[in-house]
Amino acid sequence: MRVVGIDPGSRKTGWGVVERRGNSYVALGHGTVTASAKLDLPHRIHGIVQRIDEVLAHYTPDCVAVEEAFYHESVRSTLVLGHVRGALLVAAISRGIEVAEYTPRAVKLSVAGTGAAAKEQVEFMVRRLLGIRTPLQPDASDALAVAMCHLHRERRLAPARAVAAATHGLEALLAKRARR
Amino acid sequence: MRVVGIDPGSRKTGWGVVERRGNSYVALGHGTVTASAKLDLPHRIHGIVQRIDEVLAHYTPDCVAVEEAFYHESVRSTLVLGHVRGALLVAAISRGIEVAEYTPRAVKLSVAGTGAAAKEQVEFMVRRLLGIRTPLQPDASDALAVAMCHLHRERRLAPARAVAAATHGLEALLAKRARR
Repeated sequence: MRVVGIDPGSRKTGWGVVERRGNSYVALGHGTVTASAKLDLPHRIHGIVQRIDEVLAHYTPDCVAVEEAFYHESVRSTLVLGHVRGALLVAAISRGIEVAEYTPRAVKLSVAGTGAAAKEQVEFMVRRLLGIRTPLQPDASDALAVAMCHLHRERRLAPARAVAAATHGLEALLAKRARR
Repeated sequence: MRVVGIDPGSRKTGWGVVERRGNSYVALGHGTVTASAKLDLPHRIHGIVQRIDEVLAHYTPDCVAVEEAFYHESVRSTLVLGHVRGALLVAAISRGIEVAEYTPRAVKLSVAGTGAAAKEQVEFMVRRLLGIRTPLQPDASDALAVAMCHLHRERRLAPARAVAAATHGLEALLAKRARR
């Protein structure tokens, strides 16, 4: 089971590929697509979709998991985000790939044990669960998280040992920060 | 110069193909794509894009003109409309077709001489300018109007005689209605 997670955005769109092997997760790749600010919106979206489509062609996932859009304060931002999401969803379906959507809350809950987890907690847990040593860009981290969220949901059983071990590390991190 | 006009919507998306031949406009085709209410949003959008893509493949236009999104009262509707627009814009650019966007106000001004024209005024003028005898569905009518708006703008000179003749008819229609 291989999933490409996507965290869509009109400036930066994160992507991450996660595969389940037995009880463990393996990150096969991740990155961030940055749209050129010089282009108009239609061409910016096209550029993002083109790059993500290359990722889908390369990794041939079973599913594409996308963060559900939340409503921004600005209606304009919400509208623009809708443009990017719509184009990405169609790109996946056009390749015959199943799509799944998860709220940011569900994603955080799934990887960090709380729907209110901060960005850095999510990044910490994502790296821990996937054994990634180098820091992740926030968009790539969120994309890997949504991919893992889908794998958790699909199986309906989280890899309890891995989560427990990672959570232990998280608690230690938070305790360390609290002591500062 | 051939233009496909699109009036995007998540339930109904109108399309209309207009070609300029000398000083006159010819409607080559128009229609409305109705998305199945049974499908989820990603598949609904995919269905719409697939059908519009067939239209683009068939008519090979020089440009695709799309109504600019206005902000709905509901943020949810705005977001959904954004999904449809984004996917349609990318479909056009993927075929190497130029895209142009016009506000509803600019479209109405262009075909009916006022940015505040009612739907029925637009439909009346579209049929008049294109010599269409049968009534048009509102979405197809709006799509033909945005295509004509682009042709007007491109040329920077409206076919004055045709507009004057059609406007005369419109005034007669409005006078008739007022007398009722």
